[in-house]
Amino acid sequence: MARSRIGIWLIGAHGGVATTTILGLTALRRGLVGDQGLVTQLPQFADIGLANWKNFVVGGHEIRKTTLHEEALKLANESRAIDERLVSKCKNDLNKIDKEVKPGVLFNVGETITGLASSHNRRRKETPRQAIERVQDDLASFRKRNKLDRVIVVNLASTEPPVTGDVPHKWRDLNKLLDKPRRCPLAASSLYAIAALDLECPYVNFTPSLGSAPAAIQELALERSVCHMGHDGKTGETLMKSVLAPMLAYRNLEVMSWVGHNIFGNMDGKVLDDPSNKETKVVSKDRLLGQILGYDPQTHVSIEYIESLGDWKTAWDHIHFRGFLGTPMVLQFIWQGCDSLLAAPLVLDLIRFADRAARNGDVGLMTFLASFFKSPIGIGEHDFARQFQLLEEWVANL
Amino acid sequence: MARSRIGIWLIGAHGGVATTTILGLTALRRGLVGDQGLVTQLPQFADIGLANWKNFVVGGHEIRKTTLHEEALKLANESRAIDERLVSKCKNDLNKIDKEVKPGVLFNVGETITGLASSHNRRRKETPRQAIERVQDDLASFRKRNKLDRVIVVNLASTEPPVTGDVPHKWRDLNKLLDKPRRCPLAASSLYAIAALDLECPYVNFTPSLGSAPAAIQELALERSVCHMGHDGKTGETLMKSVLAPMLAYRNLEVMSWVGHNIFGNMDGKVLDDPSNKETKVVSKDRLLGQILGYDPQTHVSIEYIESLGDWKTAWDHIHFRGFLGTPMVLQFIWQGCDSLLAAPLVLDLIRFADRAARNGDVGLMTFLASFFKSPIGIGEHDFARQFQLLEEWVANL
Amino acid sequence: MARSRIGIWLIGAHGGVATTTILGLTALRRGLVGDQGLVTQLPQFADIGLANWKNFVVGGHEIRKTTLHEEALKLANESRAIDERLVSKCKNDLNKIDKEVKPGVLFNVGETITGLASSHNRRRKETPRQAIERVQDDLASFRKRNKLDRVIVVNLASTEPPVTGDVPHKWRDLNKLLDKPRRCPLAASSLYAIAALDLECPYVNFTPSLGSAPAAIQELALERSVCHMGHDGKTGETLMKSVLAPMLAYRNLEVMSWVGHNIFGNMDGKVLDDPSNKETKVVSKDRLLGQILGYDPQTHVSIEYIESLGDWKTAWDHIHFRGFLGTPMVLQFIWQGCDSLLAAPLVLDLIRFADRAARNGDVGLMTFLASFFKSPIGIGEHDFARQFQLLEEWVANL
Amino acid sequence: MARSRIGIWLIGAHGGVATTTILGLTALRRGLVGDQGLVTQLPQFADIGLANWKNFVVGGHEIRKTTLHEEALKLANESRAIDERLVSKCKNDLNKIDKEVKPGVLFNVGETITGLASSHNRRRKETPRQAIERVQDDLASFRKRNKLDRVIVVNLASTEPPVTGDVPHKWRDLNKLLDKPRRCPLAASSLYAIAALDLECPYVNFTPSLGSAPAAIQELALERSVCHMGHDGKTGETLMKSVLAPMLAYRNLEVMSWVGHNIFGNMDGKVLDDPSNKETKVVSKDRLLGQILGYDPQTHVSIEYIESLGDWKTAWDHIHFRGFLGTPMVLQFIWQGCDSLLAAPLVLDLIRFADRAARNGDVGLMTFLASFFKSPIGIGEHDFARQFQLLEEWVANL
Repeated sequence: MARSRIGIWLIGAHGGVATTTILGLTALRRGLVGDQGLVTQLPQFADIGLANWKNFVVGGHEIRKTTLHEEALKLANESRAIDERLVSKCKNDLNKIDKEVKPGVLFNVGETITGLASSHNRRRKETPRQAIERVQDDLASFRKRNKLDRVIVVNLASTEPPVTGDVPHKWRDLNKLLDKPRRCPLAASSLYAIAALDLECPYVNFTPSLGSAPAAIQELALERSVCHMGHDGKTGETLMKSVLAPMLAYRNLEVMSWVGHNIFGNMDGKVLDDPSNKETKVVSKDRLLGQILGYDPQTHVSIEYIESLGDWKTAWDHIHFRGFLGTPMVLQFIWQGCDSLLAAPLVLDLIRFADRAARNGDVGLMTFLASFFKSPIGIGEHDFARQFQLLEEWVANL
Repeated sequence: MARSRIGIWLIGAHGGVATTTILGLTALRRGLVGDQGLVTQLPQFADIGLANWKNFVVGGHEIRKTTLHEEALKLANESRAIDERLVSKCKNDLNKIDKEVKPGVLFNVGETITGLASSHNRRRKETPRQAIERVQDDLASFRKRNKLDRVIVVNLASTEPPVTGDVPHKWRDLNKLLDKPRRCPLAASSLYAIAALDLECPYVNFTPSLGSAPAAIQELALERSVCHMGHDGKTGETLMKSVLAPMLAYRNLEVMSWVGHNIFGNMDGKVLDDPSNKETKVVSKDRLLGQILGYDPQTHVSIEYIESLGDWKTAWDHIHFRGFLGTPMVLQFIWQGCDSLLAAPLVLDLIRFADRAARNGDVGLMTFLASFFKSPIGIGEHDFARQFQLLEEWVANL
Repeated sequence: MARSRIGIWLIGAHGGVATTTILGLTALRRGLVGDQGLVTQLPQFADIGLANWKNFVVGGHEIRKTTLHEEALKLANESRAIDERLVSKCKNDLNKIDKEVKPGVLFNVGETITGLASSHNRRRKETPRQAIERVQDDLASFRKRNKLDRVIVVNLASTEPPVTGDVPHKWRDLNKLLDKPRRCPLAASSLYAIAALDLECPYVNFTPSLGSAPAAIQELALERSVCHMGHDGKTGETLMKSVLAPMLAYRNLEVMSWVGHNIFGNMDGKVLDDPSNKETKVVSKDRLLGQILGYDPQTHVSIEYIESLGDWKTAWDHIHFRGFLGTPMVLQFIWQGCDSLLAAPLVLDLIRFADRAARNGDVGLMTFLASFFKSPIGIGEHDFARQFQLLEEWVANL
Repeated sequence: MARSRIGIWLIGAHGGVATTTILGLTALRRGLVGDQGLVTQLPQFADIGLANWKNFVVGGHEIRKTTLHEEALKLANESRAIDERLVSKCKNDLNKIDKEVKPGVLFNVGETITGLASSHNRRRKETPRQAIERVQDDLASFRKRNKLDRVIVVNLASTEPPVTGDVPHKWRDLNKLLDKPRRCPLAASSLYAIAALDLECPYVNFTPSLGSAPAAIQELALERSVCHMGHDGKTGETLMKSVLAPMLAYRNLEVMSWVGHNIFGNMDGKVLDDPSNKETKVVSKDRLLGQILGYDPQTHVSIEYIESLGDWKTAWDHIHFRGFLGTPMVLQFIWQGCDSLLAAPLVLDLIRFADRAARNGDVGLMTFLASFFKSPIGIGEHDFARQFQLLEEWVANL
């Protein structure tokens, strides 16, 4: 491992999660911070040959005009989420990484996201296939320039609205639509996935956007013998659901209603304030309950953009359940977490696990990573404890 | 199973938990209520030959002068925890069961509990051995009178203060002390345990009192080839801890402090208002955190008697943890549950599992029941999900 | 006072609030309950000659087909909001009052409310003027049949959607539109108001519907020398806002955002689940903040129908404010109150105060009742403490 | 006003509140921060001739060995309560003020506080009278050295344990005990009060310690024609109580129980972890409820030192109240505020008001400042809204 070089390619490279991921990686490399939040630093993963922080080289795509340092300062000063002194110490590294960030893809990302893009980015006209080829050029030159053994692509861009139209089930059929912008039922997240998988780069979709989920793209991954996984990183409220719902289920406590209100004020929140983008997210946050409980209680999930909160995601969940003799009881929780800081370490974990899986020859969906996702593809298990055991079993079989 | 008759012997038979257990059993037998709160009614336990509600006959010990109906009415009208119409429908059954309730043991139960006892009970003078023999007479005549195949004893009495003095490790040595009230380092819960186990009756300790935990009493259980388990039913706040602490641990989120405030107003709360009784309980509620997390965060557990709450146990927990880059975050939960209604179905579950284990020839500690206890004896696993898997594995091996 | 007879005429007579009001009045008359929740029973109002509970006779309008007893049982058994034994004791009285309930008006109440009405009610066709005349016939015959000195009309019906079209400022102009259903920019609540005021019956609008708010209807009240007030009873979350916002203002703590999520499952909740009805309510719950603070923080109010909660309105408010040196801080509250039980005593209070004001010769808006309303008409004061002082000053001047 | 120079003398000058007060004053003077949290910056106090920030010169007493800059950095970096950049900008000013800080008095402050003192301070032996004279020397030389028109003394030191023994009611009698350390029933806070008042310096006691409360010391103030006030600044949980309790009272909602749990981790919390110091505080936080409500509900106040929270005081209050028809309901609030940042602006406000009162010739207790205190001396009004009106009335009469 010591000499291998692994590329991390982040889509949405200047967003809150990517900025924190990059800042964190830099700080870990310099020994400035501890292991909090990093699953891969748990003792049970110490001896499985995961890549070191020093093995990684970072690049990515971004649609906005900004810098990593500027975004990191926002997290420090506006959100009070990060210690500003840490940002200062890493400033030079952040500036260097900025040079490896290329213009992103805006295909079918909806008005709200397009509105955030720089005018230069907005003016570009390209078919889906042209976008894929441009992305692949970026990936290939990143790999070559940095002499990388492997590049892992992670989607951290804002949530896209759902695309209308059915995605063909066969890669052959989908492939044909890539030249037809009007008929192509994909958005940017899937174009990135195709670009990456086609180049044999493992792809991880940390967002609720479609990404590599369509059967046709899964087929492409198998053809190229590359691994991938998604989608939607499980960081806060949904993580809570995935331990509390099993608890209630194992105790046969009947959930009558589960209401979850989420408020926060970062860029992600701004994008989700657009109802079309929000729809994708709410479904992802809500679906697991029925699957864990075995029945569908009344549920309500709201996500509201409250600017003053910055990156501080606050969730209030009200769970109304019926106990013995039908007596109604209430469990409420309030989660006050920094969204980007909860997500970023998981991104690093997913990269390390995906890299290890690639070395292991894993192909197709990495379902053993289910515990990291709100809506893990290819697996119906939503109980966090059981999902974590899948990870431990995978490790045991390495 | 259809024709077997199983005795349930409840210590603290007129307390909130026992009253609810008995009312619930009656209501289940009459088809008046659903399965909520009953673990044994989950689909995975449907085909393992558990006893039916109709198989059970109920008796018990009690130190106060009251009736089941009166206590059930309190839960309905003072605590608003149970539907009064249900109590009315079960009144006759409750009155019949009252006849099987005998005077309890007050040995070393502390001033607060003794103060609750009827004067008749308080006047009785007996050595530990005499108390055991009296209990055994009650159990034997209950078994004979009702033609029972088996009697299962469950301790539901108020929490005893810790007894000073070391309990001898050998049954032979402990046995000798039973004739010496001053030197006997046991309290009533252990005398009941000895009485039951010696008669080959399975014993379950649902309270934080010592019960059958001492090695010498465990030895007696093995000698008599009988099964037992304890202690302290895991119903609310601690249940939450046993799913949230693993969640934080698996995500490598560092718990800096965990504060839990519990307020309630039932008889249990009144007894726990005595600092000596409370001590036993707080230790039981607090110990699992260090064992799950692998380190000891600052913790604080308070239990306060707030009369107006009646049986409604309200817990506020404030968990202060450190995420990525050392950023402090907060998780809070508020649990508003009816204590007796959370406990009672677990009591029925434990009885059914203990009965099934006895038929299976299980001897000694039933560690597969760990998920039911705050401080399961003989097993260090506190992660609720893993505890539940132990139960499923036991079932798979039947 | 002893011999005077006062009629209470409740619009929405079988709704949760009216049912509780009537049940409560009955229980108070029979000495079955205490004074909790009744402002008029505070010592400072003991000597101002308020009507006794025995002075009142009850009737009303309703659009659904049900009975008071049935509705009271729902509050007792489904919502667990009222003691069922109380309902039993008052059953006969409730049944008698049912006979004084007449069919209500459905003019412009929107689809959701119309959908709740009995088919008999839905079939009736009438112009606004015909509806007013029918209501006046009901009021007059109620007064005559019961030999009443005065009838006070209170609107407790579900929230209407906003009516489009401007209401003419002059009574003369509005009066002309009453014969033109298509052009009449009023809904039922205002027709009831006109009917009542025209008959010199004091009118109180406890809902956010328009009621007597239009200038033209206020003019009618002055012409008839009768008093009235509205609107939207201040019972829970908004009451909290009206004491917390002044606290923050007096301390110069800058509110950056105030988020309020309300969930409940009664009939009112069902009607508010219709976005057009909800709009009226949300505005009423939100407007006071800017008026108290002197600036407009970001606010968000949600109201969601969660069936399992029944009458238990639960509100979570998250107040994000900036203290000294710009440091952001958080105040959250969770309100778990029974909506009907919070509203009903205020209805009785308003009736008693309106009756007293009428005897005092008060004419026009009773602004001294501002503390009872989310959006008091004719007065800009929203600070609860100052509103309450207006009431005390009115009393002092009697 | 422009040319007058006013001394601020802070007892406990390096504590969290004093450090924040001084940092804030410096920042205000430099125009670096806004007005949040400052009552005196409200429009209603704009034209009453309050002193400007530039009028003030700061000094004080302290028992520990530390610096303002060091303490300010702790608030910035450990508690994340203040922006570190602000501390940097004010560093030079803080260092200058350090030179005006003199060794404090340890008379009867209890073991915990004494344990915090520098060894040099602990070694000093002095009678109460000697301590007073030393304090007076410090005050006089501060006044002279800085050419001050007036010095206002504010007690911000840690809460003292209650002193045993009755304080004589007459100043003459108390005066005699000042030479007898063993018999003197005062602690440091009262010695400072005597020193200040005797020199005609207004004295404000922002802590729950005894300070100038004894009748004999009040007599001294009158003799010297100087104003003073106390005690215990009302910053968070108690402030909430003083608006919520009146709300419940005016609505005749019967409070059955009120439980308040407070957790925090600053120096104040460490001192309050000593039960003898805590006693003084709990009484102060609890007493107002009975006075506002007119009856005594069951109450419970806990204060726990949770180190990880630093200056972030978190309070959970659970209010159990009975509404109409006796129905129990629940209001809970969670207050997450920075203790020092809530207190510091009030300290500046009190100084400005006390200075203005002194210029106005006010003598004795400044009861118009009741709204600033948990236990205002000489006045029974605890309703925050009414207390605030007292302040407005005082202003109107200037």
